[in-house]
Amino acid sequence: MNASTPSYDQLTATWTRMHHLSHLQSIAGWDQAANMPPKGNEARANALAEMAALLHRMRTDPLLPDQLQRAEQEPLTAMQRANLREIRRQWQGANALPEALVQRQRLATSRCEHAWRQQRPANDWKGFVANFKPVLAGAREEAELLSQRMGVRKYDALMDRFEPGMTCDKVDRVFGPVRQWLPGLIQRVLDKQAHEPVMQPVGPFAVQAQRQLCEQVMRLLRFDFDAGRLDVSTHPFCGGVPEDVRMTTRFREDDFLGSLMGTVHETGHGRYEQNLPRQWLGQPVAEARSMALHESQSLSFEMQLGSHPGFVRQLAPMISAALGEQPAFEPDNLHRLMTRVQRGLIRVDADEVTYPAHIILRYEIERPLIEGDIEPEDIPGLWDTKMQELLGLDTRGNYKDGPMQDVHWPEALFGYFPCYSLGAMYAAQWFAAMRRAMPDLDQRIDAGDLAPVFDWLQAHIWSQASLWPTDELATRASGETLNPAHLKAHLESRYL
Amino acid sequence: MNASTPSYDQLTATWTRMHHLSHLQSIAGWDQAANMPPKGNEARANALAEMAALLHRMRTDPLLPDQLQRAEQEPLTAMQRANLREIRRQWQGANALPEALVQRQRLATSRCEHAWRQQRPANDWKGFVANFKPVLAGAREEAELLSQRMGVRKYDALMDRFEPGMTCDKVDRVFGPVRQWLPGLIQRVLDKQAHEPVMQPVGPFAVQAQRQLCEQVMRLLRFDFDAGRLDVSTHPFCGGVPEDVRMTTRFREDDFLGSLMGTVHETGHGRYEQNLPRQWLGQPVAEARSMALHESQSLSFEMQLGSHPGFVRQLAPMISAALGEQPAFEPDNLHRLMTRVQRGLIRVDADEVTYPAHIILRYEIERPLIEGDIEPEDIPGLWDTKMQELLGLDTRGNYKDGPMQDVHWPEALFGYFPCYSLGAMYAAQWFAAMRRAMPDLDQRIDAGDLAPVFDWLQAHIWSQASLWPTDELATRASGETLNPAHLKAHLESRYL
Repeated sequence: MNASTPSYDQLTATWTRMHHLSHLQSIAGWDQAANMPPKGNEARANALAEMAALLHRMRTDPLLPDQLQRAEQEPLTAMQRANLREIRRQWQGANALPEALVQRQRLATSRCEHAWRQQRPANDWKGFVANFKPVLAGAREEAELLSQRMGVRKYDALMDRFEPGMTCDKVDRVFGPVRQWLPGLIQRVLDKQAHEPVMQPVGPFAVQAQRQLCEQVMRLLRFDFDAGRLDVSTHPFCGGVPEDVRMTTRFREDDFLGSLMGTVHETGHGRYEQNLPRQWLGQPVAEARSMALHESQSLSFEMQLGSHPGFVRQLAPMISAALGEQPAFEPDNLHRLMTRVQRGLIRVDADEVTYPAHIILRYEIERPLIEGDIEPEDIPGLWDTKMQELLGLDTRGNYKDGPMQDVHWPEALFGYFPCYSLGAMYAAQWFAAMRRAMPDLDQRIDAGDLAPVFDWLQAHIWSQASLWPTDELATRASGETLNPAHLKAHLESRYL
Repeated sequence: MNASTPSYDQLTATWTRMHHLSHLQSIAGWDQAANMPPKGNEARANALAEMAALLHRMRTDPLLPDQLQRAEQEPLTAMQRANLREIRRQWQGANALPEALVQRQRLATSRCEHAWRQQRPANDWKGFVANFKPVLAGAREEAELLSQRMGVRKYDALMDRFEPGMTCDKVDRVFGPVRQWLPGLIQRVLDKQAHEPVMQPVGPFAVQAQRQLCEQVMRLLRFDFDAGRLDVSTHPFCGGVPEDVRMTTRFREDDFLGSLMGTVHETGHGRYEQNLPRQWLGQPVAEARSMALHESQSLSFEMQLGSHPGFVRQLAPMISAALGEQPAFEPDNLHRLMTRVQRGLIRVDADEVTYPAHIILRYEIERPLIEGDIEPEDIPGLWDTKMQELLGLDTRGNYKDGPMQDVHWPEALFGYFPCYSLGAMYAAQWFAAMRRAMPDLDQRIDAGDLAPVFDWLQAHIWSQASLWPTDELATRASGETLNPAHLKAHLESRYL
């Protein structure tokens, strides 16, 4: 223990212990999704709940406030100061809410989410609202408490859990312009694509061949298989720990492209985790910056790079080699397939052009919902109006493909949705910065040289972890804070 | 909390918590062997060490001695009393040794085991002895302390960790006769088999086909795949938790029988775990009785049932269907293959007839080693003398296939070896008891009806868990304590 920073050292020792214990939590969580047989579920749930309770006790240890205060007076390096800032953030997150409220909300979301699994296919909006009301009540109570403690608006306080420092003002500043130009852009893209025929691939595609293709593309993207794996789960995700990243995908014999591009997406998350700075691992400063930053990595891989014509030309022969030659695998056609735009009801199926419409709609509903300006009964009407405005779609009476389509609201994940589109904007901003620094970037990607992309992300994002608040990270990386003009320029350049 | 048994209830709550936490330890341990990429190893080791330390703190909580004493005065049912007996056993195991000695021994075994991996292939006995001496010194110190505390002999105290209640006197009583009749029996079997030609299967055998065959045979043996899995690891084992059993095997393209019968063996372990009583799960009374009892289940499956001519007749068509027809898969030939006896240097490769020779030899060396009657330098000479007596083999100068062949000594697992042969004896005793209760048992197995075997094991072993001390369990199941005559009768009946 360093004589001059005893309290800081005590804190880092505690966080290292939690890093070790939550390693087991992460691996068991991945196993639950990827391996676990059904009868193991109850024992696993008990085990994970025990660990969650243990980690919660560690984060709410009454010794911590004093240690935090003392540590803040100690002579710390810049890195240590950044780490201490993130330790305090995590401590605040764990100590901000009374345990009774947390428990009550856990019950409410668990009940709502469980019923939603049946209610959604049954299109049972009324039944859903009955369970959703207590969830919303709990979320409002949490928002109220956090807002008072942090001195920010209620919805800001909820967003801050996923995107530190994000506020409605900032979201409005970036979503505002998008809302203006997006509907027109969608129409122009659809008009243009109406004259571009596209050939559909003809399946079935053997799962084993798809798996090998995915692993090959992950290698092309430099995923380190000595420090991670690809497995199968119902809902693809990137889990595990930075030292051992566990990615999952799912395979459909009639559609290889969904699985392949989903894998490219998760590989972006995976490489961020695999390249977080090793020397501070176990400390909050070495963790990924935020949800939007994480999504900016997966979308840098899936959209910016993965759907780049030069990258698609590299993919095409790998696809033909894995699945057999067919006309649809010709590079230009493959690129048209991957950039096909369609107005649709379902967010997770949306392309990169229409996707922000789904997010803006949710943001414009969940924000007044949290602030108490609207009630759950108002949602379907608002949903339909906004779907008409943004995508020209009629959703009346269709709750299951409307406000009931996502798990986020049953689980009270208010403030999470904006991160998806903020991530898309950051990704466009990173690539714009790369092109300024390397004017021949596109030619190099066309020539099959992906190293400049990875080197830039490594230097500006991955290695920076949580050293800086997000705005400062963005400014250091790209010379400006979040600027939605880059997404607009990217979409216009690729789709018009 | 029950008003009349408050201390007992506190203890069971603590043990339930430990059950939940060690669930994560078990799954992460299985994952380490079956899935983990190499670069994950350091983080996993840290995570598992953190959990081991946490569980150790819980088992050495200074509140426990008082709770144990009070609980022993509370009005408990017979089951609760059995559970309390096992809780005290586990408490004693965790509290018997000073932490400094445990740490020192952990370092010594880790160093010895690590060096042994290189020293064994290099046949470096001198180098091995240098690392083995501190391991032995630590084990002697442990034995001395445990022996004083428990009032038993030193080697008894070490065996008790794996086989509660086992003593040298009991081992001598059962191994003594075996040592007399075994060399003669081996010779008679070899003479008989010299006139029985056996056809070798011709590979290669595709791994995927072998895996499907193994899973099919596990289903035949009623392994519950809704509560467990089969995966691949370098060293096959049965891990996971009772609610979710994780078995592993390994495949060789030139030998399917090793993997298949290894899987049958692990399935015996797996079904024991899967059928431990559910209502007390998480409490010590619901855990498997001992190492020898566990081994009696794997050997009931692999040897008693798995190599039974009636079972082999069921296996034969499954093997042909999976791997293609060939003359060697004819049932009689298959049975001859599976019961082929050969004198060999390596314990893990030994057949069921020569296996006890390997165990008796190790017992006769490690017991005086622990009691201080011999030193490591004496081992090679003793090893050679005993291999000559028991198996007629010359081992001079061959340390790597002699005293350096097993990981047990580098890891200080003294007292473990006897369990393997005690398990073989118990397995023979169980089948003798089954035949007394069901005189038509062999005809039923011949007819493909395995239910009587599983029903008997369920009623007499699996459901009994740790309700009784081993001798009482054996007596309730078979009318007598361990009796090696049943193994002799089994071997004579099958091999002569």
